[in-house]
Amino acid sequence: MTSTRGRTPSASTIEEVAARAGVSRSTVSRVLNGVATVDPKMRRAVDEAVRATGYVPNLAARSLVTRRTNSVALVIAEPASGSAGAEFLQRIFSDPYFGRVTAGAQQVLRATGVHLVVLPADREAHDFVLTYLRQGHVDGVLFLSGGDEHGLPRALHEMRVPVVLSHQPTASLPVSWVDADQAIGGRLAAEHLGALGRRRAVVLAGPPGVAAARDRLSGFRAAAEERGIEVAVEHGDFSARSGTAGARLILAEHHDADAVFAANDLMAEAVVRVLQDAGRRVPDDVAVIGFDDSAPAREASPALTTVRQPVEDMAGEMARLLLDRIVAPDQPPRGVMFTPTLVVRETA
Amino acid sequence: MTSTRGRTPSASTIEEVAARAGVSRSTVSRVLNGVATVDPKMRRAVDEAVRATGYVPNLAARSLVTRRTNSVALVIAEPASGSAGAEFLQRIFSDPYFGRVTAGAQQVLRATGVHLVVLPADREAHDFVLTYLRQGHVDGVLFLSGGDEHGLPRALHEMRVPVVLSHQPTASLPVSWVDADQAIGGRLAAEHLGALGRRRAVVLAGPPGVAAARDRLSGFRAAAEERGIEVAVEHGDFSARSGTAGARLILAEHHDADAVFAANDLMAEAVVRVLQDAGRRVPDDVAVIGFDDSAPAREASPALTTVRQPVEDMAGEMARLLLDRIVAPDQPPRGVMFTPTLVVRETA
Repeated sequence: MTSTRGRTPSASTIEEVAARAGVSRSTVSRVLNGVATVDPKMRRAVDEAVRATGYVPNLAARSLVTRRTNSVALVIAEPASGSAGAEFLQRIFSDPYFGRVTAGAQQVLRATGVHLVVLPADREAHDFVLTYLRQGHVDGVLFLSGGDEHGLPRALHEMRVPVVLSHQPTASLPVSWVDADQAIGGRLAAEHLGALGRRRAVVLAGPPGVAAARDRLSGFRAAAEERGIEVAVEHGDFSARSGTAGARLILAEHHDADAVFAANDLMAEAVVRVLQDAGRRVPDDVAVIGFDDSAPAREASPALTTVRQPVEDMAGEMARLLLDRIVAPDQPPRGVMFTPTLVVRETA
Repeated sequence: MTSTRGRTPSASTIEEVAARAGVSRSTVSRVLNGVATVDPKMRRAVDEAVRATGYVPNLAARSLVTRRTNSVALVIAEPASGSAGAEFLQRIFSDPYFGRVTAGAQQVLRATGVHLVVLPADREAHDFVLTYLRQGHVDGVLFLSGGDEHGLPRALHEMRVPVVLSHQPTASLPVSWVDADQAIGGRLAAEHLGALGRRRAVVLAGPPGVAAARDRLSGFRAAAEERGIEVAVEHGDFSARSGTAGARLILAEHHDADAVFAANDLMAEAVVRVLQDAGRRVPDDVAVIGFDDSAPAREASPALTTVRQPVEDMAGEMARLLLDRIVAPDQPPRGVMFTPTLVVRETA
């Protein structure tokens, strides 16, 4: 379920695929178009050649033949325990993380003539989204969530809708995925605070129901304990507002904390602001580390020390894996794991 | 082209429409389903009764008959002079305005069983979007833009795709629209600053290519001149980042300004922060007024004085008008104009 990354779209031609598979160009075309009468052995040879050469077809040109829509959906999903309606939409349209994902996917898709539509799926919209996707309005789905399994990815898979997840599935589910090692990200933050000599950290974690949030916390906690750093935990929901509330809690309940690790940049920025308004010096009195490395982290004053996820690259890789699945649905699924890095700026 | 507002979905039944039109229930049904053989006089009577009663059909139930998709697209459009790619997407996913629009539309649509998909349309994506919409994946389009006409709404209208605009069209285009009187919004800000005795204002306006931005500026300027307030103008692009840059310009070039009117809340908040970091007191030294009244304006510290647009209500009205058009495409288009209000908080 793991593989390497880095292929570029359209790096190969259909002729190269045919040559490598030892079949004719028209056989490649028939396999790619899902024609049922192709000999299974030839089909496997073509699938393997497609994978080996990194061939990505021009879907726009092919749609005339295949009745494809040349569009894929980015489903932004909230777990069943999450928010709905205005609260959910306000949050995703306030967090540059979602813009980075959309931009990274769009860049790869446009290069192959494929359009991207965005389907916000709060906890009440799963049936709605499933109905829309079942109607065949898109050729496949980029499924973006915090990593908690709800039924949607499985239902899509069972409907034979090509789907790529933004997280490694925790249950057995034969679909491709892209993820970053969230626990390593948490560990990097704790190691840096340890090197700075900090002793009492508060983690402003994400929702306990979100796997990525749990993993950031557990990685931080493990590395902090190794270094004898005390760890207290409060929870937010990734919004700036919950960062403000969390920071007030920290001031009230953990007034001797000398470090804060927030589960995303939006919360970290709000923490810095509240601490400064309360007269604490950042980082001298309290060091603050965020997560994501979105543009506002760089542009904030003071600029945020944060754990970087290469979100655009990850979303681009999701798009490439999805195009692969659309073209060759019978290939085994692949997983691609990225590794976060620490970006040291001014707050820690 | 103007009308009143305030109808709620499903307030009336098909029986009420039939009674008012003086026709049978099945005639109403045939008109609503676009059956061509209905007598034109009866069709007009039904159309008028639909409008008078505020009837909104259950589209989900009807799709079995009509092959409708039960979904509409929210197109977030950038003018041809605007941004593209990552820059555009980062901006819309950092501005709660777009979350408010989506939430307001979604609330009305869900009540009638209609799903919402979001199509970001930067200046390079107009052809893409048109192709997708032409393929019939949605029943209609909510077209969100700053109000500059590019070809997209006209092309959709010519393709007979029901469309409702988020602004009053400047050219002749027989489609429904919802808008707020942007010039009145600008005027409210200038009147308030005049009442506070301010003499030298800087407008941090939106892009000159966006009609809503121009109207906010012209309304402000007219009312300011009536009151003898000097007005200087700088331009931003509605992002927090451009608010920061604009505020630095104001400090450098307009250091004796005693008031700033920013064309949205994101820019206004950034202005407040930069001014405070530079040692200016807000509002004592410099009063700051924003535009929109999004949640962050209320939650900011100091809380933002701002011009409120009832964005959720406006988007809900767009959705109702679109459902009307989908059901009865031959009715004349309607325009609904909202009026902004001033919300006085702490910054002016």
